[in-house]
Amino acid sequence: MPRFSASLPEGHFEGSTFQFPVRVYYEDTDFSGVVYHASYLRFLERGRTELLRACDVHQGAISTGDAGAVFGFAVASLNVRFIKPARMDDGLIVATDVIELGGASLDLRQRILRSGELLLDANVRIACVANGRPMRIPSEIRQKLTR
Amino acid sequence: MPRFSASLPEGHFEGSTFQFPVRVYYEDTDFSGVVYHASYLRFLERGRTELLRACDVHQGAISTGDAGAVFGFAVASLNVRFIKPARMDDGLIVATDVIELGGASLDLRQRILRSGELLLDANVRIACVANGRPMRIPSEIRQKLTR
Amino acid sequence: MPRFSASLPEGHFEGSTFQFPVRVYYEDTDFSGVVYHASYLRFLERGRTELLRACDVHQGAISTGDAGAVFGFAVASLNVRFIKPARMDDGLIVATDVIELGGASLDLRQRILRSGELLLDANVRIACVANGRPMRIPSEIRQKLTR
Amino acid sequence: MPRFSASLPEGHFEGSTFQFPVRVYYEDTDFSGVVYHASYLRFLERGRTELLRACDVHQGAISTGDAGAVFGFAVASLNVRFIKPARMDDGLIVATDVIELGGASLDLRQRILRSGELLLDANVRIACVANGRPMRIPSEIRQKLTR
Repeated sequence: MPRFSASLPEGHFEGSTFQFPVRVYYEDTDFSGVVYHASYLRFLERGRTELLRACDVHQGAISTGDAGAVFGFAVASLNVRFIKPARMDDGLIVATDVIELGGASLDLRQRILRSGELLLDANVRIACVANGRPMRIPSEIRQKLTR
Repeated sequence: MPRFSASLPEGHFEGSTFQFPVRVYYEDTDFSGVVYHASYLRFLERGRTELLRACDVHQGAISTGDAGAVFGFAVASLNVRFIKPARMDDGLIVATDVIELGGASLDLRQRILRSGELLLDANVRIACVANGRPMRIPSEIRQKLTR
Repeated sequence: MPRFSASLPEGHFEGSTFQFPVRVYYEDTDFSGVVYHASYLRFLERGRTELLRACDVHQGAISTGDAGAVFGFAVASLNVRFIKPARMDDGLIVATDVIELGGASLDLRQRILRSGELLLDANVRIACVANGRPMRIPSEIRQKLTR
Repeated sequence: MPRFSASLPEGHFEGSTFQFPVRVYYEDTDFSGVVYHASYLRFLERGRTELLRACDVHQGAISTGDAGAVFGFAVASLNVRFIKPARMDDGLIVATDVIELGGASLDLRQRILRSGELLLDANVRIACVANGRPMRIPSEIRQKLTR
């Protein structure tokens, strides 16, 4: 009987830029032979989730109330330039910078790179929402994000 | 033995706006209870594919060379405002307007609506590409799109 | 200002077989050039959701309690043979037959066809669950499904 | 200017079982609050791709001819039991065992576990295909897989 152990991918801060690795699989590509454009948005979201996790903010627990107030982060707007395509088996980095931490929102710049080459550049606004309405980012979350 | 027949969804032009219906399924939602933000990009892409099909432009056949020159349409940039969320079972309309038909690209405005209410507003630039490089939109395609 | 109207795809019963049309888009394919194997499971799920809708069973409303008891249908097991691949732009039919309506589960046979040709054949067991536990299918749902 | 470096997740063999870690993100869940059933198939596919990579078999390069003969691996059939659901933020292990290496196919058992608890158990048959037809697994690939 094998012992089961996992070493999940973790990102890290390089200066103020949070870097998270992503591998391209079948599921991410389309019949044009490269990565489907909406798949990059999934990669960006993983980068955001891991940045939050690195700051000890856990969205699953927040959604169920296991981490205090129940709220969520929702994408309010995004602006994406697709520069070069990624391909099956590529190892990518999602690089995330917090540009501004507002009262009820978060402005991020997110880039996707392959071996230092820029493939995608995005600006993303995240809103803090509860019951479908904007909500101020709770102060304990704010503290974790500014630390 | 049943007879198998399909009536696939078709869009239609209402003035110069192409409208295509989309239903929300399990696959489109996430644990926050509403539609996952990247799923809307899949809906927008369906709207573009159906607009092209309504203009007799078939991307599958183009990719294999069965429709003349081999090329593809790729998303070059997009700008999306997420206004209100959609939910499981919702019936949505993807409304697409061609804003500008350039030499090697296409600028579109795409909106998603539910019962006349605007849920999402996007500007999308599509580039014509062959072998990973920009290519002029072939004249027969251009004619079909301007008709 | 255009008028927005949608004609969402609807399935229909042909004898006891529920048929629902599905179009293949970019999002469904992968770099091998054909439909990604897990995309067919999304198509099967749409077929099940539309069969339930045709029987006046609405899963979104059930999940929020707007339709009485709160429960859900979950896939308990599936058995799938992938016979031939589908491709971009294909029009498919998802054909669903209820094989057995048990106390807390539902056994279905689901097939995917293209122009009468069988592409995929599946047996799917759906369980009725509430709070993560098996639950008897409520009698009003059972009545709707047997009608 | 930050230095960009990635440490992509890698699996490892524990005896003859290949183990690969997977994290659950927003994209993998649905409005029922747990992981969408078809998302597990994406996880299984990542496990297979990483097992092949660990054996020095690279599907992206094979598809383009950069690794010799052009062929692909396609899912021929699968049999899945969904035992317990996974949730947002969960760290999972995809455990893959090669049951039989046939002439033109590969039989695998794949399990998904969370902290040693079995969530999903699957049997998957993978076929070697070229131009849509079954093909013998090339001998150099067979050697890599049996090593």
